[in-house]
Amino acid sequence: MSKQELPVIDQDDGAAGCCPGLLTAPLDEDRAVELAKVFKALGDPVRLRLLSMIASRAGGEVCVCDLTPAFDLSQPTISHHLKLLRQAGLIDCERRGTWVYYWLLPEATDRLAGILTRPAGGPLPAPA
Amino acid sequence: MSKQELPVIDQDDGAAGCCPGLLTAPLDEDRAVELAKVFKALGDPVRLRLLSMIASRAGGEVCVCDLTPAFDLSQPTISHHLKLLRQAGLIDCERRGTWVYYWLLPEATDRLAGILTRPAGGPLPAPA
Repeated sequence: MSKQELPVIDQDDGAAGCCPGLLTAPLDEDRAVELAKVFKALGDPVRLRLLSMIASRAGGEVCVCDLTPAFDLSQPTISHHLKLLRQAGLIDCERRGTWVYYWLLPEATDRLAGILTRPAGGPLPAPA
Repeated sequence: MSKQELPVIDQDDGAAGCCPGLLTAPLDEDRAVELAKVFKALGDPVRLRLLSMIASRAGGEVCVCDLTPAFDLSQPTISHHLKLLRQAGLIDCERRGTWVYYWLLPEATDRLAGILTRPAGGPLPAPA
């Protein structure tokens, strides 16, 4: 599956299909530690739902006041999960008056998608 | 916000870029729970390194005896991490004689890459 051709700056890990991903070469320890934090942030159903609600929002951003009602959880709990997503670099936010607004940082999910993408013509046969 | 219209078949989640992913519509709770397990399995540096060692191996499979020396961890600890990757559906294994051999299940990583991929022409603008 071909990916976009443009160079990605900074968090470059193969979103553009250019660079070693998780599947092409053994990860070194530092990179594994850093990457594990992002996957760990995704390793929770509430956070995944929050991320999908934020990412799929027409207009690109969501008020925390529109997120909380979808969960049987307190506002501080939701805010904590949002904080973990933010610390993982997956979303960002801004306070405007009473409410905080969240949006996806698509470079982060692009990056994860890239490193999970198989190299074209790579080895990876699944033994029968 | 509308959810996917098509019945989702088993693990097919957009490896081919065809199906709703994490970024296109709010995840329902069951799917979030199931998906969080896979991300959680990736949310550990040792497991990420193991997965990358297995996935990038020419020939497509690795003896556990070739994995253990890369870590300052006991064989049972490594085996435990491998078990978690296996339970998440990311790898599979087979015992042959003394050793167990592991290989990537590329459909699983394809699936994750697919659901993390932005829809072509999708909304997702990052506010300035």
